[in-house]
Amino acid sequence: MSRQHCVVIGAGAFGTALATVIAANGHEHVTLLGRDRSLMTDLATSRRHEEALPGIELHPDLQYSCDPEILEHANTVLFVMPSQAQASAADTYGPHLQAGAVVVTCAKGIDRETTGLLSHVLEKRLPGHPVAVLSGPGFAADIAKGLPTAMSVAAADLSIAESLARSISGPTFRLYASADPVGVQLGGALKNVLAIACGMVEGAGLGDSARAALIARGLAEMSRLAVALGGEADTVRGLSGLGDLVLTATSHQSRNLRFGIALGRGDAIDSSRGGLVEGAFAAAVASRLAESHGIDMPITQAVAAIIDGLLDIPTALEQLMSRPITTE
Amino acid sequence: MSRQHCVVIGAGAFGTALATVIAANGHEHVTLLGRDRSLMTDLATSRRHEEALPGIELHPDLQYSCDPEILEHANTVLFVMPSQAQASAADTYGPHLQAGAVVVTCAKGIDRETTGLLSHVLEKRLPGHPVAVLSGPGFAADIAKGLPTAMSVAAADLSIAESLARSISGPTFRLYASADPVGVQLGGALKNVLAIACGMVEGAGLGDSARAALIARGLAEMSRLAVALGGEADTVRGLSGLGDLVLTATSHQSRNLRFGIALGRGDAIDSSRGGLVEGAFAAAVASRLAESHGIDMPITQAVAAIIDGLLDIPTALEQLMSRPITTE
Repeated sequence: MSRQHCVVIGAGAFGTALATVIAANGHEHVTLLGRDRSLMTDLATSRRHEEALPGIELHPDLQYSCDPEILEHANTVLFVMPSQAQASAADTYGPHLQAGAVVVTCAKGIDRETTGLLSHVLEKRLPGHPVAVLSGPGFAADIAKGLPTAMSVAAADLSIAESLARSISGPTFRLYASADPVGVQLGGALKNVLAIACGMVEGAGLGDSARAALIARGLAEMSRLAVALGGEADTVRGLSGLGDLVLTATSHQSRNLRFGIALGRGDAIDSSRGGLVEGAFAAAVASRLAESHGIDMPITQAVAAIIDGLLDIPTALEQLMSRPITTE
Repeated sequence: MSRQHCVVIGAGAFGTALATVIAANGHEHVTLLGRDRSLMTDLATSRRHEEALPGIELHPDLQYSCDPEILEHANTVLFVMPSQAQASAADTYGPHLQAGAVVVTCAKGIDRETTGLLSHVLEKRLPGHPVAVLSGPGFAADIAKGLPTAMSVAAADLSIAESLARSISGPTFRLYASADPVGVQLGGALKNVLAIACGMVEGAGLGDSARAALIARGLAEMSRLAVALGGEADTVRGLSGLGDLVLTATSHQSRNLRFGIALGRGDAIDSSRGGLVEGAFAAAVASRLAESHGIDMPITQAVAAIIDGLLDIPTALEQLMSRPITTE
């Protein structure tokens, strides 16, 4: 039996990292599909992507292409572009997909046009294709270097998630299967809101204890919203929610964290630039959803209000600390 | 009506920090009770504890004593000494307690003699006294400086926990009430095991992604054991479990983390010194409990085996990464 063919669309750091680790796992024939012909030629020649993954050698079995027709032989297609580009990528590449190919969205965020989940965007634009979600705590460089990483892969049909987990996992990259794509995606989107909040705590010099409390209380908020939207609380407390939250909120590689630090220090925020941070957008959407579902999300709502200039950090803190004493 | 009287036993960093923040909250008359007469006199005079909390001014309303008879007027008594000293402290101070005084254990760990929970130790030695537990993510210096902190207080009778939360909380120090003292204590004890594991990951240079995955998967293990022992999974996912785990596993102030880093680097471990780290002891106890309850705790069991010299880190990692693919 010939091996399955997996195509990873998107030759940025994360796409390249996923492509090389899946190639290394050896279960699949893997092609990295990019748009920039000179970049793809360069990658094929040098087997390095110095701009995205400096110093890392890509796996010799990984293939490169800028021809969407390669998709005609793919059983599994990973969409690894920013969340706001997923819809147009579905339109561009959809016509080339093999019937029944599984499509996997690997972005973390909310679709800006519909304010909906990316899996729903792909389902709508790619009818007939099972849609899965890959998310969780994995820095591109860690994945590409072969450091141990564990992430979640979710599909409404658990057998599809399990099949993906088996075919993509390897000695250094371990996927856990989940039947809760809603919870997995909300974890990935909402952790950016809390990363901003953790940044504010850091920028304002409020201490590690405050940050730890914020993460624990923030996770409770994330779980409440996920449940209201049809996800499971346990998913949010797993790799794709908690795990990614811990990674994002404690590592300075995160743009959302750095955005929060700037706010915490009282630096002027360029709102056009602010709009580019996933978490700022997710905060506004989640805050509205919380209100319409009657859910208590004090941290998320405070983050949204601070970004909108409607609340300052000392007042937000005072409000959070003076809420009625309650059970956890 | 005269104010309630709260006595904090133990003039180390954490006891002094709790005493000063409770005094600052103004709901209670607070006395810090220590054994070292010259230290207590010095604290009363200087209103500073330079050795434990350098540079921090203690609240002017805080009183100091080394006379156990002060306990005869106390409605609430906090036991703030290391876990292995809680039993003898109960014996020493018990005879001085007012009838019905609430006793609160503030140590994190497992009683080494009985391998049981500290609340059970106090219940047995102080019959007739309601026993509560205070735990969660709070560094002594953060609490004492008045930085925002949130912790859990738990008692089998929720109304006692709620009453403590109201009387001890203040503008900077917020307590959440819980009816699950078992879960709160297990979170506080087991997070030290995972802090050792996170240290190993750091010491071995395995990356932030691996640490984040370890925290998420480790929390799932902690929850399983807590449930088997009569606690609630949600408690472990709250401030006293997850929150404290995040704080301990990401801050180098933790002795357990540093112990793990040394193991991860392959430094020789002095097992007599190793025995002093709470998490090393907790790993052995939790590992045995997991086995006797038929619970899967691969990370905890690996930590215990590595400390015992029965397993090396590369083999442990290979075993963890090659377990059958599963759901979260």
